[in-house]
Amino acid sequence: MQQALSRPKLISLAAGFTDNPSLPVEEARELAANLFAGDQSARRALQYGSTNGDPKLLKLTARRLHEQDRAALKPGRLPAGADYSPDRMLMTHGSQQFLYLLAEALFDPGDIILVEAPTYFVFLGMAGSLGVRCRNVRMLPEGVDANDLDRVLKELARSGELPRVKALYLVSYFQNPTGRTTSLSTKAAALEVLDAYERRAGHPLYLIEDAAYRELRFAGPDTPSALTLPGATDRVIYTGTYSKPFATGIRVGFGILPGPLFEVLSCIKGNHDFGTAHLLQKLLADALETGVFDRHLTRLQARYREKAAVLGGALRDYCGDAMTWDTPAGGLYYWTRLKGRRRSGPRSKLFTTALRQNVLYVPGAFCYAQDSTGRNPDNEMRLSFGNASGNEMTEGARRLGRALR
Amino acid sequence: MQQALSRPKLISLAAGFTDNPSLPVEEARELAANLFAGDQSARRALQYGSTNGDPKLLKLTARRLHEQDRAALKPGRLPAGADYSPDRMLMTHGSQQFLYLLAEALFDPGDIILVEAPTYFVFLGMAGSLGVRCRNVRMLPEGVDANDLDRVLKELARSGELPRVKALYLVSYFQNPTGRTTSLSTKAAALEVLDAYERRAGHPLYLIEDAAYRELRFAGPDTPSALTLPGATDRVIYTGTYSKPFATGIRVGFGILPGPLFEVLSCIKGNHDFGTAHLLQKLLADALETGVFDRHLTRLQARYREKAAVLGGALRDYCGDAMTWDTPAGGLYYWTRLKGRRRSGPRSKLFTTALRQNVLYVPGAFCYAQDSTGRNPDNEMRLSFGNASGNEMTEGARRLGRALR
Repeated sequence: MQQALSRPKLISLAAGFTDNPSLPVEEARELAANLFAGDQSARRALQYGSTNGDPKLLKLTARRLHEQDRAALKPGRLPAGADYSPDRMLMTHGSQQFLYLLAEALFDPGDIILVEAPTYFVFLGMAGSLGVRCRNVRMLPEGVDANDLDRVLKELARSGELPRVKALYLVSYFQNPTGRTTSLSTKAAALEVLDAYERRAGHPLYLIEDAAYRELRFAGPDTPSALTLPGATDRVIYTGTYSKPFATGIRVGFGILPGPLFEVLSCIKGNHDFGTAHLLQKLLADALETGVFDRHLTRLQARYREKAAVLGGALRDYCGDAMTWDTPAGGLYYWTRLKGRRRSGPRSKLFTTALRQNVLYVPGAFCYAQDSTGRNPDNEMRLSFGNASGNEMTEGARRLGRALR
Repeated sequence: MQQALSRPKLISLAAGFTDNPSLPVEEARELAANLFAGDQSARRALQYGSTNGDPKLLKLTARRLHEQDRAALKPGRLPAGADYSPDRMLMTHGSQQFLYLLAEALFDPGDIILVEAPTYFVFLGMAGSLGVRCRNVRMLPEGVDANDLDRVLKELARSGELPRVKALYLVSYFQNPTGRTTSLSTKAAALEVLDAYERRAGHPLYLIEDAAYRELRFAGPDTPSALTLPGATDRVIYTGTYSKPFATGIRVGFGILPGPLFEVLSCIKGNHDFGTAHLLQKLLADALETGVFDRHLTRLQARYREKAAVLGGALRDYCGDAMTWDTPAGGLYYWTRLKGRRRSGPRSKLFTTALRQNVLYVPGAFCYAQDSTGRNPDNEMRLSFGNASGNEMTEGARRLGRALR
């Protein structure tokens, strides 16, 4: 991102920024005008709120999540005990803050978290900064490989390190970086494997479901979250965000988690900042309640569908000989695999050539844990259709094609 | 705060909430309208910013701080090397987040931080949650007692714990809880003492200056910050906030710190949340640039002057026989000392009686580090004139007087 911001001619297909022209300018203008028109609503927005979040936004968020899961489950039914209570939900300064709070609550230095290979690279960096070791688990097209999860846990049990394992982290919708979505049966299988090792671990093994891209779905049906699985209330931690699907400058995310963990996170959140800026939460609560949020989201989904098609087409035109990829059904990313012996890492000839051609991508190697159990692939790249314009994406793919040749 | 929010009849003289009627409703309405009127400015506010903060707000903040210190120093002059560069400044989600980031960067569990006795109790809780030990240093009317600081450091050197000491934390303007302001000569003396022990500590001993209440000055001249002292650039960490002097719902604070620490905090801030919500920063930058912020602040200062007088008068009328206090020249608090053998702690007869009378205060004991070097006073209380109305303060003092009797 720093590179992208400091070189005006660079086309960045790397940054996870969101689309600029489709930002909800009129919507935000109107929401703010309405919020500040009423003396009482204005005062509330300008005053401190409570640490866990604005009660109305918590309620709307819990209800929204509940309805999303119910709709996605159809004709299935939520199990008895499924819990979408706002009382175990926290509003945070983006879902990133939720992940940070969670990591602080859950991990001691030296602890282990299991991650998809590949996974969200900022999470790897954050975990590393807290002294947490990340361990790769193989990923299949429908999400994490439960068999490999079992193999990794068995191995850790054998080496005596199982007590250091605390959780499995999944980016379950249009994953960053692969764009893949984890099927419900995959989540169920993963949760079962975790459950099977819990006694030997000596403590809960949580499934952390990062649903940051769930709302950015532009093709196919929604997938139920792991909250719909039996036992989820005690073992599933779910986090989502309103930033990417509305406006990243209005930074609000949320998370729902088992009661005992909730209490701890609430304390830590208090120590961080006493609660997320009330003004942002009030704007979002109004956006949700008035339907402004959903109307904007529909437009945004169409916009990303179109942008994904543009980048996909440009990749076909300019890079098709040199790489393969799957077409994403949501999110912000293409994950591509180079053909032949090409390498994509930050020291590769390709990366430096691309940079010289003024096009930037995220080397796939950044997205794997350095867990020294094996060699990570170095022939992948993440390309984003979030921030770049149609022309930029086309030109970016052209430059990338030139670099590949 | 939780108590205050859940009991409608309770008059809270405890909460650090700010005054509700004087919140800048019209100002915020106009700022938002202007920000969203321009298509470009709206888009910028609704998009991600950079981790360290909005460049314009950083620049305005650095300049403001520089000018405040220059004006306060008159006729003195800033020493050569005084540095108010926005390049070592971070915008945060309130100054509380800055303190948290700093604590994460600076402290390992078991480390020691020296604090004023008494000090800001949320800081004590936050430090404790990170496993940091707080150690009391005596406080005089003009701030921390440099002689006692020397004594404490000598003691820690003797016991071999000096290498665990990392910093001294001062709430230097209208301190929470005492309302006292630290004089510049006191800051200079403290910095000298720290400097004298640095070699034996084996690492820098920082002076952390928390200036959260600096803008809420309603009597007397401003005091120069420790940034005006020789050597400050390498050893002084200064944090301030725009929340309390403008609107706590627009949560933005800032901090300036030595270069190497700045780099670390910037990384941690990235891991927390990629940077403070851009919309809040843009609103504040506009408020500062247009003069709206300062015009509001002038009114706010007058408001708190008046409210402080109301609470002071009511205390004289209803509690004067039973306690003493100094009249604050800024901030949000009266710090009172009970006469005779009265106790104020959370298990005291006074506290429970007051609560039964539906009035809440902060027991002074909460504001001391539990450092087991001595017994902390249990006959003080913090009373806030921030949030309660004039009538509530009068009635609160009346109830408190009844409880005292």
